[in-house]
Amino acid sequence: MEIQEFKNVVKNYDIVFFDAFGVLKNSSGMIPHIEKTFEYLIKHDIDFYILTNDASRGPKLLAKSYQDAGFSMINEEKIISSGMLAREYLRTKVKDGKVAYLGTKQSAHYLEETGLKALSIADLDLNHIDDVNALVFLDDEGFDWREDLNKVINLLRIRNIPVMVANTDKSYPVSERMVAIAVGSIADMVQKITGRKFIKFGKPDSSMFIFAYEHTRGGAEVGKEKILMVGDTLYTDIIGGNKFGIDTALVLTGNTLKEQYMDRIKAMGILPDYVCHSAVVY
Amino acid sequence: MEIQEFKNVVKNYDIVFFDAFGVLKNSSGMIPHIEKTFEYLIKHDIDFYILTNDASRGPKLLAKSYQDAGFSMINEEKIISSGMLAREYLRTKVKDGKVAYLGTKQSAHYLEETGLKALSIADLDLNHIDDVNALVFLDDEGFDWREDLNKVINLLRIRNIPVMVANTDKSYPVSERMVAIAVGSIADMVQKITGRKFIKFGKPDSSMFIFAYEHTRGGAEVGKEKILMVGDTLYTDIIGGNKFGIDTALVLTGNTLKEQYMDRIKAMGILPDYVCHSAVVY
Amino acid sequence: MEIQEFKNVVKNYDIVFFDAFGVLKNSSGMIPHIEKTFEYLIKHDIDFYILTNDASRGPKLLAKSYQDAGFSMINEEKIISSGMLAREYLRTKVKDGKVAYLGTKQSAHYLEETGLKALSIADLDLNHIDDVNALVFLDDEGFDWREDLNKVINLLRIRNIPVMVANTDKSYPVSERMVAIAVGSIADMVQKITGRKFIKFGKPDSSMFIFAYEHTRGGAEVGKEKILMVGDTLYTDIIGGNKFGIDTALVLTGNTLKEQYMDRIKAMGILPDYVCHSAVVY
Amino acid sequence: MEIQEFKNVVKNYDIVFFDAFGVLKNSSGMIPHIEKTFEYLIKHDIDFYILTNDASRGPKLLAKSYQDAGFSMINEEKIISSGMLAREYLRTKVKDGKVAYLGTKQSAHYLEETGLKALSIADLDLNHIDDVNALVFLDDEGFDWREDLNKVINLLRIRNIPVMVANTDKSYPVSERMVAIAVGSIADMVQKITGRKFIKFGKPDSSMFIFAYEHTRGGAEVGKEKILMVGDTLYTDIIGGNKFGIDTALVLTGNTLKEQYMDRIKAMGILPDYVCHSAVVY
Repeated sequence: MEIQEFKNVVKNYDIVFFDAFGVLKNSSGMIPHIEKTFEYLIKHDIDFYILTNDASRGPKLLAKSYQDAGFSMINEEKIISSGMLAREYLRTKVKDGKVAYLGTKQSAHYLEETGLKALSIADLDLNHIDDVNALVFLDDEGFDWREDLNKVINLLRIRNIPVMVANTDKSYPVSERMVAIAVGSIADMVQKITGRKFIKFGKPDSSMFIFAYEHTRGGAEVGKEKILMVGDTLYTDIIGGNKFGIDTALVLTGNTLKEQYMDRIKAMGILPDYVCHSAVVY
Repeated sequence: MEIQEFKNVVKNYDIVFFDAFGVLKNSSGMIPHIEKTFEYLIKHDIDFYILTNDASRGPKLLAKSYQDAGFSMINEEKIISSGMLAREYLRTKVKDGKVAYLGTKQSAHYLEETGLKALSIADLDLNHIDDVNALVFLDDEGFDWREDLNKVINLLRIRNIPVMVANTDKSYPVSERMVAIAVGSIADMVQKITGRKFIKFGKPDSSMFIFAYEHTRGGAEVGKEKILMVGDTLYTDIIGGNKFGIDTALVLTGNTLKEQYMDRIKAMGILPDYVCHSAVVY
Repeated sequence: MEIQEFKNVVKNYDIVFFDAFGVLKNSSGMIPHIEKTFEYLIKHDIDFYILTNDASRGPKLLAKSYQDAGFSMINEEKIISSGMLAREYLRTKVKDGKVAYLGTKQSAHYLEETGLKALSIADLDLNHIDDVNALVFLDDEGFDWREDLNKVINLLRIRNIPVMVANTDKSYPVSERMVAIAVGSIADMVQKITGRKFIKFGKPDSSMFIFAYEHTRGGAEVGKEKILMVGDTLYTDIIGGNKFGIDTALVLTGNTLKEQYMDRIKAMGILPDYVCHSAVVY
Repeated sequence: MEIQEFKNVVKNYDIVFFDAFGVLKNSSGMIPHIEKTFEYLIKHDIDFYILTNDASRGPKLLAKSYQDAGFSMINEEKIISSGMLAREYLRTKVKDGKVAYLGTKQSAHYLEETGLKALSIADLDLNHIDDVNALVFLDDEGFDWREDLNKVINLLRIRNIPVMVANTDKSYPVSERMVAIAVGSIADMVQKITGRKFIKFGKPDSSMFIFAYEHTRGGAEVGKEKILMVGDTLYTDIIGGNKFGIDTALVLTGNTLKEQYMDRIKAMGILPDYVCHSAVVY
């Protein structure tokens, strides 16, 4: 599988879905020269969206981090996050009461918009849980893991409520050499202990792509064949895009390195339509 | 969770998605009096579709089995099967060559419509596989398990091709007391041995529901809140419907029995919006 | 499977292996009247040992908790814990350097006896790990889960060292109604994130029974057919004893309740040789 | 980790445990010059045993294949196979009736020695199963996978009997380029469908090593520190030997290739005490 110029790939599409981490930014900040890509897209009237499994903050704050870095074209409307899917679920399926959550106060943003009362697991009192009608895993910060995960186990033994996982990632990079455990791993552990079936949102699950597709299509009535997914991870971005039926481009600025991409594609049997060094348009 | 009359539930919706096995039919044939349900739906202008993980035959043949039983209203357009999703994937992602498949000649119907050449794994010669560009698990019949599954393992060691699973069920009933291993279990075994990531279609995956939704919405511009999923299995029909954001009704004529439904709901933490004895409208 | 008097069962054996929690004690303390069992065993010259997956303290402290409750016959020699197996592994396989551990200072007792320097994960500095030659999961207390588990992940990315799990339990009871996450669940999560193969000790693994058997056999040259394993949990005590080739008795004072034991035996296909209400000899 | 001469390693031990496939033989026959190793061992009075997960034939027939190749020193007493562990289990745990098995008539050798009547799954009639008291997975040959695995599923729905797996391997090589599905993969699939807990024998499980240890120790009263396990597979031979507390040597003539051994050791975190090109003594 040959490596191609990203410009020669992207020019054939009407809409581009970008993964965030490993494609647009990394632990050092924005990928150098990635601003040229957005200039190119705007100039050529190619629409774009960022699909992220990051549910630690609402779309407004996620957009703000790009704008603070000088990317004014990335506003709230351009962000599609797995937290938004959890919010939709709560809107349609949980009529009243409280939603307990694991995460920071910032991540609770998603829940409050539903009209339900958001209750941090850190503030939950196991003696008063009769009105807790859902539980959401949003972020790995904002609670005491030992004390509060033990609360979660016991909450689920008593209350028969739906449980959502808004970020299914297993770990995430915090610097060039260090990683951290993501809330997806914690949710898997709790699921195994309790024997429950959690409802999981985020790439590679199709619901993420469906949500993005519906979000975009209002304006642009383009078909799936004119949408490109750009990602750095075979088992989330690429397999998810493939399954949804859109074209996929693997970039080598994140999870998948240049010296290993062919081995990984072969080992997993996940084939992107294109491979590019980066998502930068030169 | 109280058991309700199905009529009182279904009357509030514009579209109904039915699971097939355990809801409309069982190993003895059609569920007694289920024809009254279709009479009621037609009389009250409620549209309906059958969502099935059965990829053993094309929609025309699946519909024929209902028509032969006197249900003339269930035609090809009413059938949404996981095999149709595999077909869509092939259409968008596999440009040419052959598609090897596990299943009967009838199940290969899905593949032939794509313009690709369908090749039964039973007819595959491992010395001539250069033009085999995809593999699909369709059905547990039509091949010699030992000989042909060993072929599959070795095909995947040599060819780096996408693999689809068009029926993720683990087993299926063949009589009141007997079950059989479904192709989903076989695919899981092969996936584990080869270390590959297969692309899986069928409930509870959201792609099945979005496909049905897009299929129906052309005519009826109804919202998700006016669609009801009716199923007998918590971990496919109900969790899938819940996650897609439509209402769900569990019926007790199949996988989930009357004496155990509350225990199962509690053990898995999957909550239907309604529970009904059956999908029959009296 | 009929429930039998424990006395009628135990009288036929020369050695008895007891599980601790759910058999001899529960969250309220020692099982009422269990002292009569030990009086009976001593009077009839039946030897006994306690096989426990509790690696939170050394055998001396574990024995002390029984002696403090008035059971002077339960001394250090009677205790076989999974922590002792981890200690043996370190003795034979890790020649020098430091052993990092997750657990309290008390649990580190096992490690210090090996002559290696025990280093709590709480005290580990990721900038100085060149002499860390092993890692052991001992207990869920004694460290900050978030901060120190993230250390563990990064330690294992850099150092290629053996990892032991001295307690494979998933959760444990803390009161009649509440449970807590055990270190076995935490180890499973870390193993999944890192992709490593950990070395796991504790029932049902045969190494626990082998160790107990070798420990006892010095004096008593009895055969396996004269040893009885008494436990409250089918998937640790009973399947482990069965596999090791000794007889097994399930008691209904812990994990497996009277009203469910037949269903559980049937669902898992794990058959004890006997079922008794409790391990009390009346 | 440096590669050492096998002679310089083996000379320090009193007993050697060899894995068979990938160490002594491969798909082309015996490893060239391996006879020199046995000449060396005999000359230096180092005892040896072959530990194999092959339960397809009894020890006599397994030994015969070596003797036919000119290795007269490898007789029945030198063979320790996982099938022998299943036989021990049946002897102690199953008192009477029939043992159903998956495998060839040759593999049933293990069962017949127990005094129980062995019944091939191919000959099993589901209408007459009241006296079937155990089920054993021995080999992937000797039965029709589709028809007979469906029998197995239904047998286990009706009869609450112990199930043993005498070979836990996932696949095995049949030629230099081709592999075949092993009975361990089939057993995993059946276990998942039925929800039962099977009793599994074979490396890396400790019971295999303790059985070998007890088998050998009658004559030689050597300690564990004088026993070496030689294998080609990190996740069976090496981790199993490590856990049992004996020294381990990885050879590069089978599953683990020279160009990948360091990567694999690092990825899995399983460390042999030695690495050698082969088990040949030059």
